[in-house]
Amino acid sequence: MRKLLSALLLLATGAEATAQQSGENLVQYVKPIIGTQRMGHVYPGATYPFGMVQLSPDTDTLSYEKDGKYNGDMYKYCAGYQYDDKTIVGFSHTHFSGTGHSDLGDFLIMPTVGSLKLNPGVASDPSTGFRSSFSHDNETAEAGYYKVKLDKYNVTAELTATNRVGFHQYTFPKTDSAHIILDLMYGIYNYEDKNVWTFVRVENDTLVTGYRQTSGWGRTRLVYFAMSFSKPITTYGTANLSKKQVYRGFWGKFDQAHNFPEIAGRQIRMYFNFKTEDAEKIRIKFALSPVSTEGALLNLRTEAPGWNFEDVKQQAQNAWQKELSRIVIQSESKEEKENFYTSMYHAFINPTTFMDVDGSYRGLDQNIHKANGFTNYTTFSLWDTYRALHPLFNMIQPKRNADMIQSMMAHYDQSVQHMLPVWAHYANENWCMSGYHSASVIADAIVKGNAPFDANKALDACLATSTHRSFDGLGYYMDMGFIPAEKNGTSVSTTLEYAYDDWAIAQAAKKLGRMDVYNTYIKRSQNYKNVFDPSINFMRPRLSDGSFKKEFDVLSTHNQGFIEGNSWNFSFFVPQDPASLVELMGGKKKFVQRLDSLFNMELPDKYFAETEDITRDGIIGNYVHGNEPSHHVAYLYNWTDQPWKTQEKVRMILPKMYASRPDGLGGNDDCGQMSAWYIFTTLGFYPVAPASDQYALGSPAVNAATLKLENGKTFEVEAVNQSEKNVYVQKVLLNGKPLQRNYITHDEIMQGGKITYYMSAKHK
Amino acid sequence: MRKLLSALLLLATGAEATAQQSGENLVQYVKPIIGTQRMGHVYPGATYPFGMVQLSPDTDTLSYEKDGKYNGDMYKYCAGYQYDDKTIVGFSHTHFSGTGHSDLGDFLIMPTVGSLKLNPGVASDPSTGFRSSFSHDNETAEAGYYKVKLDKYNVTAELTATNRVGFHQYTFPKTDSAHIILDLMYGIYNYEDKNVWTFVRVENDTLVTGYRQTSGWGRTRLVYFAMSFSKPITTYGTANLSKKQVYRGFWGKFDQAHNFPEIAGRQIRMYFNFKTEDAEKIRIKFALSPVSTEGALLNLRTEAPGWNFEDVKQQAQNAWQKELSRIVIQSESKEEKENFYTSMYHAFINPTTFMDVDGSYRGLDQNIHKANGFTNYTTFSLWDTYRALHPLFNMIQPKRNADMIQSMMAHYDQSVQHMLPVWAHYANENWCMSGYHSASVIADAIVKGNAPFDANKALDACLATSTHRSFDGLGYYMDMGFIPAEKNGTSVSTTLEYAYDDWAIAQAAKKLGRMDVYNTYIKRSQNYKNVFDPSINFMRPRLSDGSFKKEFDVLSTHNQGFIEGNSWNFSFFVPQDPASLVELMGGKKKFVQRLDSLFNMELPDKYFAETEDITRDGIIGNYVHGNEPSHHVAYLYNWTDQPWKTQEKVRMILPKMYASRPDGLGGNDDCGQMSAWYIFTTLGFYPVAPASDQYALGSPAVNAATLKLENGKTFEVEAVNQSEKNVYVQKVLLNGKPLQRNYITHDEIMQGGKITYYMSAKHK
Repeated sequence: MRKLLSALLLLATGAEATAQQSGENLVQYVKPIIGTQRMGHVYPGATYPFGMVQLSPDTDTLSYEKDGKYNGDMYKYCAGYQYDDKTIVGFSHTHFSGTGHSDLGDFLIMPTVGSLKLNPGVASDPSTGFRSSFSHDNETAEAGYYKVKLDKYNVTAELTATNRVGFHQYTFPKTDSAHIILDLMYGIYNYEDKNVWTFVRVENDTLVTGYRQTSGWGRTRLVYFAMSFSKPITTYGTANLSKKQVYRGFWGKFDQAHNFPEIAGRQIRMYFNFKTEDAEKIRIKFALSPVSTEGALLNLRTEAPGWNFEDVKQQAQNAWQKELSRIVIQSESKEEKENFYTSMYHAFINPTTFMDVDGSYRGLDQNIHKANGFTNYTTFSLWDTYRALHPLFNMIQPKRNADMIQSMMAHYDQSVQHMLPVWAHYANENWCMSGYHSASVIADAIVKGNAPFDANKALDACLATSTHRSFDGLGYYMDMGFIPAEKNGTSVSTTLEYAYDDWAIAQAAKKLGRMDVYNTYIKRSQNYKNVFDPSINFMRPRLSDGSFKKEFDVLSTHNQGFIEGNSWNFSFFVPQDPASLVELMGGKKKFVQRLDSLFNMELPDKYFAETEDITRDGIIGNYVHGNEPSHHVAYLYNWTDQPWKTQEKVRMILPKMYASRPDGLGGNDDCGQMSAWYIFTTLGFYPVAPASDQYALGSPAVNAATLKLENGKTFEVEAVNQSEKNVYVQKVLLNGKPLQRNYITHDEIMQGGKITYYMSAKHK
Repeated sequence: MRKLLSALLLLATGAEATAQQSGENLVQYVKPIIGTQRMGHVYPGATYPFGMVQLSPDTDTLSYEKDGKYNGDMYKYCAGYQYDDKTIVGFSHTHFSGTGHSDLGDFLIMPTVGSLKLNPGVASDPSTGFRSSFSHDNETAEAGYYKVKLDKYNVTAELTATNRVGFHQYTFPKTDSAHIILDLMYGIYNYEDKNVWTFVRVENDTLVTGYRQTSGWGRTRLVYFAMSFSKPITTYGTANLSKKQVYRGFWGKFDQAHNFPEIAGRQIRMYFNFKTEDAEKIRIKFALSPVSTEGALLNLRTEAPGWNFEDVKQQAQNAWQKELSRIVIQSESKEEKENFYTSMYHAFINPTTFMDVDGSYRGLDQNIHKANGFTNYTTFSLWDTYRALHPLFNMIQPKRNADMIQSMMAHYDQSVQHMLPVWAHYANENWCMSGYHSASVIADAIVKGNAPFDANKALDACLATSTHRSFDGLGYYMDMGFIPAEKNGTSVSTTLEYAYDDWAIAQAAKKLGRMDVYNTYIKRSQNYKNVFDPSINFMRPRLSDGSFKKEFDVLSTHNQGFIEGNSWNFSFFVPQDPASLVELMGGKKKFVQRLDSLFNMELPDKYFAETEDITRDGIIGNYVHGNEPSHHVAYLYNWTDQPWKTQEKVRMILPKMYASRPDGLGGNDDCGQMSAWYIFTTLGFYPVAPASDQYALGSPAVNAATLKLENGKTFEVEAVNQSEKNVYVQKVLLNGKPLQRNYITHDEIMQGGKITYYMSAKHK
């Protein structure tokens, strides 16, 4: 194992060297602004590849409750920024990329000038608080760099980042009253009592440390910081000294509001004052740690020892260039390159680094652990990312993917429930969404030979997770082969997802020669049949007595037994065995009709209103690209006699769902899954069933692409005659020889070589 | 320095060996029940010398507010237990000993039988909850051991402890419904939102871990635990699943109330169910840590690997025997021995150990630190303990005292305010009470040659602390030589205390040869004169313009400029220079009259009503022994022509203030200070001014005593003809030679030898 690890490390280094030699500046094509309008839920700010810090402007936040009621609109601000907004409230250090739920927004910084205001104010009238108007004309968003002018203050804000340090540069006018606000109350996805505790120490006139503890989407979340100013603070203080907000006790002896160096409480907002000359720059280095303020300081001193903003920006963009260069595409279209490299960028944001530079991190048990021999990651949005993002990593980020699995195994080891992550972030399990898709991620790595970890132990973890009877209907599933509708709100989709995950486990078991496990799980993987109602040819909720639920609407997504989807979409969710699904649904001809209907039908508005996380253009007929259960669907034509329809549909979907505009994402990017779909599809193949070694062929949307693999080899994609119209594949050569099947294997890619598609405006 | 340390360690080992050889069982004389009635504020439960765990029964708790108003009565439960109460609500793991303010009461355990009740119920009707009636007839309290029968359940509860582990043994009747309640909501000194966060994991069927985070007297306090059962839990669960109390989020998918292994939230109360045979014992080992649950588990496994309750009890009592044996007294009176060894016991509870067995502890900066080469202590009630407790330690616990100073220096190093502790516990500074008496503790150790640490650095810390201008009037004191009355509520007493502390700093500086510092501070130490009003011969508040405050009542303790005392008492607070004070007050004759009046006057009830922390019998005339500022006063006759009055007064005070009864303490024990006064006074000498090397002679109240010093030497006290009536000292021999002065020096004690008092019923 160690030998294998060393070999991989060596190869990884080789790949790095290759990437760095790459010629064209690919960073120029990254447009972080894509997807910031409407439902993309990505942020435009500065981050490092898979970085701990996501330093980005926040335009607003909405509370969980509005007028005493649940406020569904709050999800609008999952990433803190909405393109249509006219004001910026500040720049905070943690953001999710593309999620449909939220948290974070830690440590909001805002530079202001003039009379000190310590409340954010309302967007409709920025003069009510410290927020400032801004214009997109004065805004630049690049990979690892963000710049905006804050009109109200005539301050130019620039942001960049290392992995763990946010680097701010504010260019002030000449003033005696420059302020930097540090808001520890601010948060995305806010509700009363979300802040559990905060603690701030002004260590000296240029260094501030502290932490914030919240209970939000993450139940028990602690983030520590160390904040260093390039210029000494003249005076400082805190707002909000109510007893409920800031601790008093005998500390009330002191004037805690002014120049008092140690504050603790539930709601703290601080300010730091400076005098500036005209165009003077105040820089802030803001390091995070999941462990301690000492850890944050270590991260700060290690990653950002100097004060040169340009250097740090260059370092961040070099890191992005290196990651982007893993796939070099050839295209005459700038927009195509922007879509492609912005997808690459979005794909390489999550999971995020979750350890200090010394390997220390907070575990699920809330104790401090050391990551030995791997980088510990968090932000596992697995219901989304098991589909295409982790398979993408197995191909072009295998080292990181193996480390992610080691991180998942550490989570498992620390889990008192003995479960792999479901939706994990910042030493928390959220239990958001369904399935045990960690098993798919692990199985995909094992099957594809990217398992420089204890694969048998990882399989054991999958077994423990998939037999946790009290988890989300799993006991019923194990006993009855399906989850009864009266026991669980997502009984059908979860049954389908478990069946797929079981198949993935079976594949890993087979690879490891554990045939008893294989036999058990391959049998479980057939459970999808138990929720299929042949009388209507749809997946359908079933009751404990075995009967199908009577009231049932195949188009509705509400209370029908599915999550983020209706039966129309989820009935196609048998990625592990499309051939059998085709049979089950009445053969190839009928199946093609079904698929055609999906894309062509007109979905009544009342059903759209039920659909989460996508915009009206994000839906094609009844095909909902913005929700992941559809992601493999267009590829299912490959299992019929009309694979050209896969080619046609994916080329139809691409421009509808991805565009180089602020509103260019048709739904939540979901931590890179939407982007990974784009990347695979653009390259001409897609992992319909992760944990299979096959990629279904589609229709490449670039003329050529070079995959620079970590093993030092390259795999080239060429699409001869490819164009907007020439979307049909006439023939395929693999390494010059005709490929007489509609898939390629992982090994064929990893051995290096070339696939050549011959494209035409007419289908075969 | 290292050489000195090694030598001391060697000597310490020698002393230990000596102590262990000591014959008589001294543990039998410890009556932890003394002081549990009324104002003693000590607890009767089990603890280890200077132990981290204080496992003790709690009879009640009172909230900060009662009917919407501040509830002064809440201080009644500083130690959780009041002797007059009829019910026990449970056994919690942390208690202060003798304080007048409170916090703690972490992790209340209660064994119950029958139908499960998850609220404590009210004392007037224990059937309303899980609390049980009990009788003192069925109660035993020893050093390191406590036993009580819980009448309601017919359960016998026994408690013992190692340093960091509370060991419970509950003898149940035969029942199918035995419960152990673990209450994480319970706390001493309660108010809304005191619990910041709690976290519990049922790791397996015998192990539970978690933590509790509170914001009370300690602003930001975190205690971790590991709880091990001797018998597997059958089922378990939690009460109070309101969203406000226990976190839900997507965890709401699970039935968190029943057998769910991981709970977090603000208010958690758990139960664990068992079946028991008749007289079956369920044992619990409950370890604490200031660092992590991993640390708690390490403490548990290191200190209490086995399940034999008797062994652990024996181990605790052996440890107490060893500590108690440091002074062996000869007395025919059992009560005298009980008073003496209970005082020794109370003196050796605080400060408490504050690090895991591996030396890890949480620092003031909330980061985790390692104690290198010393034991880290917390619970520094310095306004009380600098007077006699730390001087006592310098004499008979020098190794621990030096470690305490190292702990104080670590606190200083971690303090963003660059201040030594004022009132510190559990990684917090409370800022309770006044002065910078850490300086006295450090100076006393330096002057007495017990400084196996960087003495110059320690002195620097005293200098930084004593020049912190924003601290409690200190800036005014430094500028004006006193604190103006309109700027500070305790302007006079704080001025007096600063002046004394400054004198202590001067003494340490002289010892270290830093004469510039000596000169500055000896001058500052004269500042007591600035608040003396010769026109009335009393210390009196002074305004910024230099004039004395007009409205002034020398007997009142309210708003007169003093803390826990009136001008009558505080006017004697010049321990650093009684001779000058005598002059200032008009000479020896007048001074004697003043002292006589203090003891003899009849204090009108209205003034008593203002007095804190003492009972009516705790006051002798206007002399308030229960409040520390008086502790040196009886010894001041030594600076007049009538030292026999010191002898008379101290012998009068002893039996009035200390008795072997539950109500035997006339005021709060104050973390051992009251007990240290008893010990010194009983031995016949007292440190009137810590940081002087002199002890004022009084009247020994035992026939003989042997001090077994850590340096291997012994110092003997003999009081020839001593009796209740023979309280006057006729002559004193030191090592057989007449002693022609009324003090002995620290060196004379530490060199070993013997002091012989010849006692008489008549004074000289």
